[in-house]
Amino acid sequence: MTVRRPMTQRMIAERVGVSVTTVSRVLNQDEAQPERWASPETIAAILEAAKEGGYRRNPHAASLRTARSNLIGVLVPRLQDFVLATIYEGIDEAAAEHGVSTFVTNSMDDPALQRTRTQSMLDRRVDGLIFGDAHYGDPFLDELEAQEIPFVLTSRRSGDHLAVTCDDLEGGRLVARHLLELGRTKIAVIAGLPFASTGLERTRGLVDEVRAAGFDIPDRWIIQNGFDAAAGRAAAERIFAAEPYPDAVFATNDFAAIGAMGVLRDKGLRIPEDVALVGYNDTPLAESITISLTTVRSPMHQMGRVALETLLDLIAGHQVASQRLMPELIVRGSTVGDEAKREPGAV
Amino acid sequence: MTVRRPMTQRMIAERVGVSVTTVSRVLNQDEAQPERWASPETIAAILEAAKEGGYRRNPHAASLRTARSNLIGVLVPRLQDFVLATIYEGIDEAAAEHGVSTFVTNSMDDPALQRTRTQSMLDRRVDGLIFGDAHYGDPFLDELEAQEIPFVLTSRRSGDHLAVTCDDLEGGRLVARHLLELGRTKIAVIAGLPFASTGLERTRGLVDEVRAAGFDIPDRWIIQNGFDAAAGRAAAERIFAAEPYPDAVFATNDFAAIGAMGVLRDKGLRIPEDVALVGYNDTPLAESITISLTTVRSPMHQMGRVALETLLDLIAGHQVASQRLMPELIVRGSTVGDEAKREPGAV
Repeated sequence: MTVRRPMTQRMIAERVGVSVTTVSRVLNQDEAQPERWASPETIAAILEAAKEGGYRRNPHAASLRTARSNLIGVLVPRLQDFVLATIYEGIDEAAAEHGVSTFVTNSMDDPALQRTRTQSMLDRRVDGLIFGDAHYGDPFLDELEAQEIPFVLTSRRSGDHLAVTCDDLEGGRLVARHLLELGRTKIAVIAGLPFASTGLERTRGLVDEVRAAGFDIPDRWIIQNGFDAAAGRAAAERIFAAEPYPDAVFATNDFAAIGAMGVLRDKGLRIPEDVALVGYNDTPLAESITISLTTVRSPMHQMGRVALETLLDLIAGHQVASQRLMPELIVRGSTVGDEAKREPGAV
Repeated sequence: MTVRRPMTQRMIAERVGVSVTTVSRVLNQDEAQPERWASPETIAAILEAAKEGGYRRNPHAASLRTARSNLIGVLVPRLQDFVLATIYEGIDEAAAEHGVSTFVTNSMDDPALQRTRTQSMLDRRVDGLIFGDAHYGDPFLDELEAQEIPFVLTSRRSGDHLAVTCDDLEGGRLVARHLLELGRTKIAVIAGLPFASTGLERTRGLVDEVRAAGFDIPDRWIIQNGFDAAAGRAAAERIFAAEPYPDAVFATNDFAAIGAMGVLRDKGLRIPEDVALVGYNDTPLAESITISLTTVRSPMHQMGRVALETLLDLIAGHQVASQRLMPELIVRGSTVGDEAKREPGAV
């Protein structure tokens, strides 16, 4: 396939020797008969030149007529975050299949940036928006809904707004059951950001299940400070600042778990003998690191695909509903010992 | 700030009680005097309604007049890759400052996808393109240049095409000098992908410097298979399949280094006592993992910013030149021991 610069109507006009207006009328007027605008010979020459030159309509001009831009705006906290980058890959893949384009931009989880960047997207005449950066209970989303702007949340949900997410409550419960089965009952949680439903629900799912089994988790063992490796390190330093230590740590993100892992080794605590460690998302690093990480696999790519398709259905006026995709527990060395579970050749 | 759905000319027409054509003529005709199209009272009412409703021109309509779309297309291998996501953040940040929008999409390093996705971008009438996925020596880029399509390469360079990259040759030399100073002379290289200038030049910089010091690197110690953790693991398994072992490994990407780290520990080899390990890019994980990673910091975010600005200069007809940004060696525990270099509190 040869890539080429799109031929313009001006280029066709020069080649055929007629005015740009004539070319435009012949090529653009869907409803009017082209015979109204030029002789059959001229029309044939214009169509021939357009075909030879690989002429395609300017999509901006087309969108002015159809009132659809075929553009979808996507806001994420940061594309640097592997989880959001993967969700966006799913969105973009599905968008390409449906003939729409996506803009993606970072809001850095900053409410002011969320607003200005959403406005920029609307000014670009997007047909709808996908938010991967919803703050739980944020009235901003109610404002958008009141204006009938079509949008879908993904990764994080908020209130009753249309959302395609992982069932994070169930993810937390899966971790609780696994740790309780291993006899771990003193569980600390690196709970993520306080305004993200992901961290909130993963934590709540675990805590409810642990309490239902008759055990409690003290407040000082639930640290809400972030999802990345630095946050995990800082949270683990607080949790392990003084004894008694927990016998398990649930980090609501794999990167936070990797940050916590360093603190445990510095303290001379063995994983999993002294402290079992569980992450969330099953990013590729989870199985590549020195002690392979037990984690909850969330269907990130699929989540992005379904979010895009749900938004297109909404825009088309079809009936749509929120979806919670199922997580899966992946058991590895950080809870059961590498010898017990490791496949031959894995690291 | 209140986000709102953009007001259309139809909404203004309904509010003022005139035809859409009249509104369009008053608001769109830059050169003609609006007095030609309506009474002063009607013009005032239209302008008032437009102001109150926060009317903004449809950017697609504006682009039809100026022949600039103010859109830049960006192709990367995968946004999941932290390095490319960070470069894209720099691109998008600079684009927002210059009032242009960016589309980003993955080519998965697949030449067929590079072409179809480039064509999609051109069909969207982008003003120019940034490629983060150049294959070294690919004639595709020559084709684009022959058609006078403005583009800039980043991350990877190819031939004489305009490129904003890290000075990867110098990065490789920095690593060689550091390892030689530590007395390491048996150095293996996890060299990345064979068509990426990044891996090629980092490897060449190191190999040339090591040879200049009078040492050689056997071919079987230079593995070209990828940049991610899985590739690093597979490469290290080949390098350490049989003795004699190297006393140092240079991975041309931090994630590949992390993959290699697991193999070394499985073999009971101590880092750095038995094998020193160096990565590349200084991603946040490099200092968060159990054994902190010596690496070469490449100015990823800045690279993206400069690439975007270079492209805008090119489009504007200004004089532009390729740039190679300076890398910096970051020494940590994986070459000199964690006790020797670790800051208090670091993991």
